[in-house]
Amino acid sequence: MNVAGQARRTIWPEVGGPAVSIIDQTRLPHEFAIARLRTLEEAARAIADMQVRGAPLIGVTAAYGIWLALVADASDAALQAAARRLLATRPTAVNLRWAIEAATAAVQGLPPAARATAARAFADRLAEEDVAVNRALGRHGLPLIAACAARKKPGQPVNLLTHCNAGWLATVDLGTATAPIYAAAAAGIAVHVWVDETRPRNQGASLTAWELREQGIPHTVIADNAGGHLMQHGQVDLVIVGTDRTTAAGDVCNKVGTYLKALAAHDNGVPFYAAVPSSSIDWNLRDGVNEIPIEERSPDEVTTITGRLEDGRAATVRLTPAGTPAANPAFDVTPARLVTGLITERGVAPASEAGLRGLFPEFP
Amino acid sequence: MNVAGQARRTIWPEVGGPAVSIIDQTRLPHEFAIARLRTLEEAARAIADMQVRGAPLIGVTAAYGIWLALVADASDAALQAAARRLLATRPTAVNLRWAIEAATAAVQGLPPAARATAARAFADRLAEEDVAVNRALGRHGLPLIAACAARKKPGQPVNLLTHCNAGWLATVDLGTATAPIYAAAAAGIAVHVWVDETRPRNQGASLTAWELREQGIPHTVIADNAGGHLMQHGQVDLVIVGTDRTTAAGDVCNKVGTYLKALAAHDNGVPFYAAVPSSSIDWNLRDGVNEIPIEERSPDEVTTITGRLEDGRAATVRLTPAGTPAANPAFDVTPARLVTGLITERGVAPASEAGLRGLFPEFP
Repeated sequence: MNVAGQARRTIWPEVGGPAVSIIDQTRLPHEFAIARLRTLEEAARAIADMQVRGAPLIGVTAAYGIWLALVADASDAALQAAARRLLATRPTAVNLRWAIEAATAAVQGLPPAARATAARAFADRLAEEDVAVNRALGRHGLPLIAACAARKKPGQPVNLLTHCNAGWLATVDLGTATAPIYAAAAAGIAVHVWVDETRPRNQGASLTAWELREQGIPHTVIADNAGGHLMQHGQVDLVIVGTDRTTAAGDVCNKVGTYLKALAAHDNGVPFYAAVPSSSIDWNLRDGVNEIPIEERSPDEVTTITGRLEDGRAATVRLTPAGTPAANPAFDVTPARLVTGLITERGVAPASEAGLRGLFPEFP
Repeated sequence: MNVAGQARRTIWPEVGGPAVSIIDQTRLPHEFAIARLRTLEEAARAIADMQVRGAPLIGVTAAYGIWLALVADASDAALQAAARRLLATRPTAVNLRWAIEAATAAVQGLPPAARATAARAFADRLAEEDVAVNRALGRHGLPLIAACAARKKPGQPVNLLTHCNAGWLATVDLGTATAPIYAAAAAGIAVHVWVDETRPRNQGASLTAWELREQGIPHTVIADNAGGHLMQHGQVDLVIVGTDRTTAAGDVCNKVGTYLKALAAHDNGVPFYAAVPSSSIDWNLRDGVNEIPIEERSPDEVTTITGRLEDGRAATVRLTPAGTPAANPAFDVTPARLVTGLITERGVAPASEAGLRGLFPEFP
């Protein structure tokens, strides 16, 4: 998507590598900076420190991390160590495990000398597949927005609400939850997006607002607390969120606070959809609330926040009294009963095991 | 309640006045500062700029504002102008209108020379009544917490969740939602409070956390997004919130985001109570969602935030890209159907017109 009018992706291998470049998302929205990852450790740290974030992008970054590891040491031991190191970076995203296992499987039967090249090819293919999947999510989600537009008076935009950043910054390109929005805008449908700021890391206020602005999509940032009020007053036509892990039963694990928006949507008859690339589906899980481990992040993310001073310098301020304890669960689980539908790359499924297996019969 | 071990109130008339002192809550939690209000305009600005906030405290401050106005000019015109000026400061809190009308009624039949003294006496009485009401809220709310404690294993605290600051800082003393918590702690019940940070103004992270710390009550600050997840996992026994306006039918208008917590409590079978001094009840309203005007505050409260740098200086940082539009509704309405009960100064009522009128039969 566009950055200052120029088409960009979030991650790309450097010509002349071995290195892969990323948009350093910890610097956004105030600064557009590119970081170069040359080693497994740099790739792992980019994931752990959230220079890259978003389930699909994490998966692709991990695949490139396997490549970088094998360039340095293509032994079985190095491959296994790389997989372990990358898997430890973020415990919730199922894409991460999936990408690491798939990358490992793609190379481990090969002689060591052939592994790095194969890993690079695998990562490149994974990146292209992500873009193709997101394009399909956009194609299948577009009719949901078009249906809202058909009920609007002329000149009134469709009001969408999204939580966190399931935008192109969370993927290689296009985004998951944003793909239908970008598709609708491209189709000439007037849209306006309510952007949950998404405390504590403010991915909505910093990333989603930034990418929507760069793409020219009308939007308004709101506190996470405001969405219920807006829904009570008919100001939200459709909610689309992303997912970090989806159970076979259609429970959606996404950034903490998603569940609260789903409750409000349900209470007000607002359709609530999750954009679900099939790589995020964990076919082994049925009870998301009880089965999905939720990452507990640093309390500092709650007690302090980083932004820009008036003079443009970055600064971190403390929001609580000194020494105040804080808890920071990073995700929550929205039970399938609150989800109107799951937008997948094969179409929109009811949020149920039957619905998902109808579209993906090949999974055991 | 305690500040550094010394008993304090949020507002008190100065000996040798005419002046009233307040704790300047815009400086908390990082600095304990006292501001002196000498004129109507200073009182009005203290309310509008939220140096004082919380429905009960706003009402008392307005009553002292009428006094300060009449000290300067006790004419009918000045009295009316003072009422208008104060009423314009915050549109949502029904206590404000109630206090201004009551203060006006207490003095307007008097000769101008007697008005200031009468207004001062009225304001003093209002302050004492607030403390007495809160003490009663604590007495009636305590059994709800005690009932939770009775179901706990020995040594396990009752986990409460509260939103915003309906603490003693929102009142003259004791608080509304906190009064039962302070009463429980005084009765030897182990309690722990989940404190919603309460974006965008962070009254939970800054004020509730501060007053609980000064009082020695165990607490943990969380992002507003986290409460639903905690309730899904049995980590919240009871929710108690405040209210800025309550309809005769039991709808609760409180700080934006309260509705989302009520939905989560309802979905997880967690009791959800509002602490409702009867002065906050608007007996003319029945449909809170459609009838209560919601204050829309500055978008700057969403796009920027103020805290302390590591060196202790206050600083304001911008969280969004430059120029990002934001919306900032300050309150929302929780429908009575989601409210387990209303803790009033006369007892706990079901959240219904019959319930409230059963305790307050004298209102038309």
